[in-house]
Amino acid sequence: MTYLFNNPTKFADELIEGYVAAHRNQIQPVDGGVIRKHKAQPGQVVLVIGGGSGHYPAFGGFVGPGLAHGAAMGNVFAAPSAQQICNVAQAVNAGGGILFCYGNYVGDVLNFDQAQARLCAMGIDVRTVVVTDDIASAPLTEKHKRRGIAGTLPVFKAAAVAADAGKSLDEVFRIATEANEHVRTLGVAFSGCTLPGSNKPLFKVSSGKMEVGMGIHGEPGLYRIDSPTADGLAEMLVDKLLTEIPSTIVNGDGARIGVILNGLGSVKYEELFVVYRRVDRLLLERGLTIIDPIVDELITSFDMAGISLTLFWMNDELEKTWIAAADTPAFHKGNIVRSNIDTPAASRIKDKHPLEIGSMDSQSAAAIVFVALKAACKVINEKSEELGRLDAIAGDGDHGLGMQRGITAAVVAAKEALDAKAGAGTLLTVAGDAWSDRAGGTSGALWGVILRSLGNALGDEATPQASTVAVGIASALRDVTNLGNAQLGDKTLVDVLFPFSSALATAASQGLSIADSWAVATDIANEAAQSTKKLLPKIGRARPHAEQSLGTPDPGAISMALIITAIGKTISFL
Amino acid sequence: MTYLFNNPTKFADELIEGYVAAHRNQIQPVDGGVIRKHKAQPGQVVLVIGGGSGHYPAFGGFVGPGLAHGAAMGNVFAAPSAQQICNVAQAVNAGGGILFCYGNYVGDVLNFDQAQARLCAMGIDVRTVVVTDDIASAPLTEKHKRRGIAGTLPVFKAAAVAADAGKSLDEVFRIATEANEHVRTLGVAFSGCTLPGSNKPLFKVSSGKMEVGMGIHGEPGLYRIDSPTADGLAEMLVDKLLTEIPSTIVNGDGARIGVILNGLGSVKYEELFVVYRRVDRLLLERGLTIIDPIVDELITSFDMAGISLTLFWMNDELEKTWIAAADTPAFHKGNIVRSNIDTPAASRIKDKHPLEIGSMDSQSAAAIVFVALKAACKVINEKSEELGRLDAIAGDGDHGLGMQRGITAAVVAAKEALDAKAGAGTLLTVAGDAWSDRAGGTSGALWGVILRSLGNALGDEATPQASTVAVGIASALRDVTNLGNAQLGDKTLVDVLFPFSSALATAASQGLSIADSWAVATDIANEAAQSTKKLLPKIGRARPHAEQSLGTPDPGAISMALIITAIGKTISFL
Repeated sequence: MTYLFNNPTKFADELIEGYVAAHRNQIQPVDGGVIRKHKAQPGQVVLVIGGGSGHYPAFGGFVGPGLAHGAAMGNVFAAPSAQQICNVAQAVNAGGGILFCYGNYVGDVLNFDQAQARLCAMGIDVRTVVVTDDIASAPLTEKHKRRGIAGTLPVFKAAAVAADAGKSLDEVFRIATEANEHVRTLGVAFSGCTLPGSNKPLFKVSSGKMEVGMGIHGEPGLYRIDSPTADGLAEMLVDKLLTEIPSTIVNGDGARIGVILNGLGSVKYEELFVVYRRVDRLLLERGLTIIDPIVDELITSFDMAGISLTLFWMNDELEKTWIAAADTPAFHKGNIVRSNIDTPAASRIKDKHPLEIGSMDSQSAAAIVFVALKAACKVINEKSEELGRLDAIAGDGDHGLGMQRGITAAVVAAKEALDAKAGAGTLLTVAGDAWSDRAGGTSGALWGVILRSLGNALGDEATPQASTVAVGIASALRDVTNLGNAQLGDKTLVDVLFPFSSALATAASQGLSIADSWAVATDIANEAAQSTKKLLPKIGRARPHAEQSLGTPDPGAISMALIITAIGKTISFL
Repeated sequence: MTYLFNNPTKFADELIEGYVAAHRNQIQPVDGGVIRKHKAQPGQVVLVIGGGSGHYPAFGGFVGPGLAHGAAMGNVFAAPSAQQICNVAQAVNAGGGILFCYGNYVGDVLNFDQAQARLCAMGIDVRTVVVTDDIASAPLTEKHKRRGIAGTLPVFKAAAVAADAGKSLDEVFRIATEANEHVRTLGVAFSGCTLPGSNKPLFKVSSGKMEVGMGIHGEPGLYRIDSPTADGLAEMLVDKLLTEIPSTIVNGDGARIGVILNGLGSVKYEELFVVYRRVDRLLLERGLTIIDPIVDELITSFDMAGISLTLFWMNDELEKTWIAAADTPAFHKGNIVRSNIDTPAASRIKDKHPLEIGSMDSQSAAAIVFVALKAACKVINEKSEELGRLDAIAGDGDHGLGMQRGITAAVVAAKEALDAKAGAGTLLTVAGDAWSDRAGGTSGALWGVILRSLGNALGDEATPQASTVAVGIASALRDVTNLGNAQLGDKTLVDVLFPFSSALATAASQGLSIADSWAVATDIANEAAQSTKKLLPKIGRARPHAEQSLGTPDPGAISMALIITAIGKTISFL
């Protein structure tokens, strides 16, 4: 249960504010996250990490000497937006290149990749290491598909120590990659967590049961068993992790390893120590040498009950990074030598250009687009909780809140554009930017692209025709497919957008008005949204153990159909 | 819910073992707790803290440079025994005197005071500062009655910094006392916690409600209200704490304060930051200067949902101790200068003397006493969970487990004594020592005294008569009353022991046998145990808001009656 919040949609912003207030000596805020209080050396590589909120100390808690230079902090369980990541990266950039490092989740990859593209376009050298330590989430042969959990810490540490030692971006990338190749984690869970403002847990594990391999947002595990004793659990975790000794570790028995026993939230310290007691013995019995173990809460999921065990197999180079000093608000080790040069308070990176004024025709169209967006916003607000619940079955439960934040920001930006006499194209473009900037996550990035693609097609001059709208939707479909790598049948919003786009194009080519062609295509879209429940859940997202997982419609498809329908009603007079 | 444990009665031992294994570089175990890895300077004062387990990082997590020299770690929610405290104190003693510092709870005071008396008898200078920061637990005029919660940390820090600076015991005592006078805490709770091995929470707070002022073992708060928003809670806590600005703070508005926002277990970091955001603003608006705030989990109650806010009003001297560096497994601040002298591995302090052999008569009596103890142990094992539940209504729920651990240890020690041909008196004495040593808490200390008093009366020579037993029980009653300061009607085990003792004495004086007089007195004892439910709950223990608090028998009285009855059945043939 999450007990303390104000407005749930502002939870992430408020926690960042409070976090910064509590650690004014160590960190400072930028738009989208936090950065070290003290400057990096000119010309050095800097490390930018990030992810959704709800996992503290990951990721904002790991900013400081010996660890990250900056962290992008997304909304609850949602990736930070590309804009947030760019803001953090530009604020810490010291001219030597930037390493992005984060756990492997679709939304994070999508937004960090976009940010990397934007920064590269500005001439900033960026490399990326995605952490893939969760052995339950894919077989070793597909390690790149594994999720990132508590094993992120040793990889961050390896990258940070190399960066602060003045190594080149190539070297920092190499060391971080090697760290990721040498880290393995397995987690278990006994209960779900309840997100701020929700009165139901995101998912449940039956009482007395334990799910092996469940992810930190409730992603599916391998299987469920009766809850073991503390010793029994220690034995299971150690056994499974020792089946995957990295091939570079020649003598597995004599190896030196870092160990992390991580609590997810409400399995508390005392229980962790009871489990660690047995873990320690088992590893020693195997002849392994444990270096500086950590038994703590490092990557949490609110009050989720669960733990994970991480083994970090070290060579000499990696061991130096593991034992190196660090001093961040949530992670301390040894004595750090501090620089005294404060980073100048970061200015808002994104410049606001005055909007161009549209033609009178396009201003009229912009007014209609604005009303349509408002109608879409209303329906999303009404259905936000339901969308969150649907998402919780197959995903991480952030869909409702994310959509709400995004479309609300889009409407606010659209209103400003309308007041500034912008045309329909510009209005949609700034609304799309606001959506992806404020919402983050996967859906934020996709909807930002949809609005921008449609805006580009409509332009700021002519009165839009049915064919213009159809072309705009088709290009939105193309851009979304490229960005998210989703295909028809993957149970994403593409499954609705694809047939909607086809129907719209057909109707427009038959000479129907915008309103009529939209109406025809709306029926097709709603049908498609409903039929997503017949599709097999996409691999890596579905929760086969969840009681209701089969036959559940995809929330991204549902919200798209809701928006299409709401817009159709608004423009029915055209 | 506590998910991970092996044998619940061994939980505390196992967590200490795991905790030590995870921090071998910083701490080392002694029988009863942990001490710093590195030696104190010869001749300096040392700081010994302690308390029950289940509150990590309090108290074992606070051992290291800049904080405590040693911590006695009791069983779950039970005070450490006097023996444990002595072991820790002797292991860290550097010849300059010892300061005991701990939160104000009956069991802790009882056991620390006993330990202080024993150490003083050895010529070691010991002073005590009991922390009383919880403003909800008694009015300011009775500050000495208040409980100690998260405000323990600044008091520990003040004492430790003064001690490590080489100040005299008088000075260390003065500074710690002053720190305690300047610290105020208020806590709230939304839910109870579930102790290891139990399948029910210790107590409940109705859904959607919040209890203001509830203690960390579920002690009664001031009242219950609907759960507020994060901002609303921040405002309430700040308002209430600011009604108690210490009189020594001349200009309340311009004061410098340390702030601790503490999470009890499952109210997580993100929620704490959202609350802290508002706390920070409110305090700044009042013109206060916040120095090095802490937003973290410092004193927990397993997975209990709740938080507390501490204000530490500082003068120049106290501020220096607050900002001083520290480096313990669970608390870090700044850079500490380390000593490299390891403390030699502590030897077991308590010497085992060979037991004296009793007369043949007394050996026969010892055999009967042993069988009686075993019978008592059996009934306590059977009723352990029920006793815990009863205790949870009015107290901290540790009674069942504590009695079980104590009497089990007593039986083991008695068996050893029997095998060594000890008399009845020695057998009871060593059993009493084992009981208080292993069980800790209030009941452990009291039962230790009861067995020892009875043992002294029986001796190791003569066959015990009814009058000897009656005299032994009467002296047990006297010693228990002296030790615990409990009077008849206080709803403690005295309410059973008193009438039992009187009845036993009367029956013995009428010439009845041991068995018959015990049988008569047993009826009286059982009647008295049942009638404790009619008594008003003792101040400071009862939970007026708990649904079943009235009419609940006292668990200490019930367990005493159970033991008396079990013994009576065993000796009925005498």
